[in-house]
Amino acid sequence: MSPAETVTAFITAIERADLDAAIGLLADDVEYDNVPMGKVHGPQAVRDLLGPMLGACSSIEWIVHRQAAEGNLVFNERLDRFEMPFGWLEVPVTGIWEVDDDGRITLWRDYFDEATYRRQLPG
Amino acid sequence: MSPAETVTAFITAIERADLDAAIGLLADDVEYDNVPMGKVHGPQAVRDLLGPMLGACSSIEWIVHRQAAEGNLVFNERLDRFEMPFGWLEVPVTGIWEVDDDGRITLWRDYFDEATYRRQLPG
Repeated sequence: MSPAETVTAFITAIERADLDAAIGLLADDVEYDNVPMGKVHGPQAVRDLLGPMLGACSSIEWIVHRQAAEGNLVFNERLDRFEMPFGWLEVPVTGIWEVDDDGRITLWRDYFDEATYRRQLPG
Repeated sequence: MSPAETVTAFITAIERADLDAAIGLLADDVEYDNVPMGKVHGPQAVRDLLGPMLGACSSIEWIVHRQAAEGNLVFNERLDRFEMPFGWLEVPVTGIWEVDDDGRITLWRDYFDEATYRRQLPG
């Protein structure tokens, strides 16, 4: 798979809530960075964040509006949509991904506005 | 110039506060979108936003950490730094750019966390 195909495989695994498939695409030293909220390192730490998120959603759609890849680097502009008990939560995001020569994701960094996310939460 | 070179030319024009050179790289129908804050259209509207910004800064550095281009599309991960009377203001940003066949920028869209910017302002 090309780096862009690896990123697409990761996103489609998230969309079908297949956590094992998604985590299996990550390198041992992966960095997952939600820029305004902080970063974690390693597949287990990513699993610990994504598991509860997937469990809280009845449906997930990450719509890729634009994507460009060069070398091991992939950027995409997305609308990440999460169906929660209170309705759809939508976050406009730009993702930066790096994929190593073994086809494992070493960097997943999302830029977004934290308040845009928080103001959609109930209460 | 390639689309990536056009984007670099725009950024270096901003860094030397050469507003005419920067605006000259924009298409008539350019969209400038600061995602959490809103968008404007057309070179004059961009000039009206950038002019006061450049006037408020004694120095500007936009450090490009990562960049990928594909077709007419350019993404970059940047740290935008503005030297203000109260010190350096720094905003982590991802930019999405589209450049038409005449070498003019038709889209400039920045994703960032608005609170990260606002909490650095005095008062």
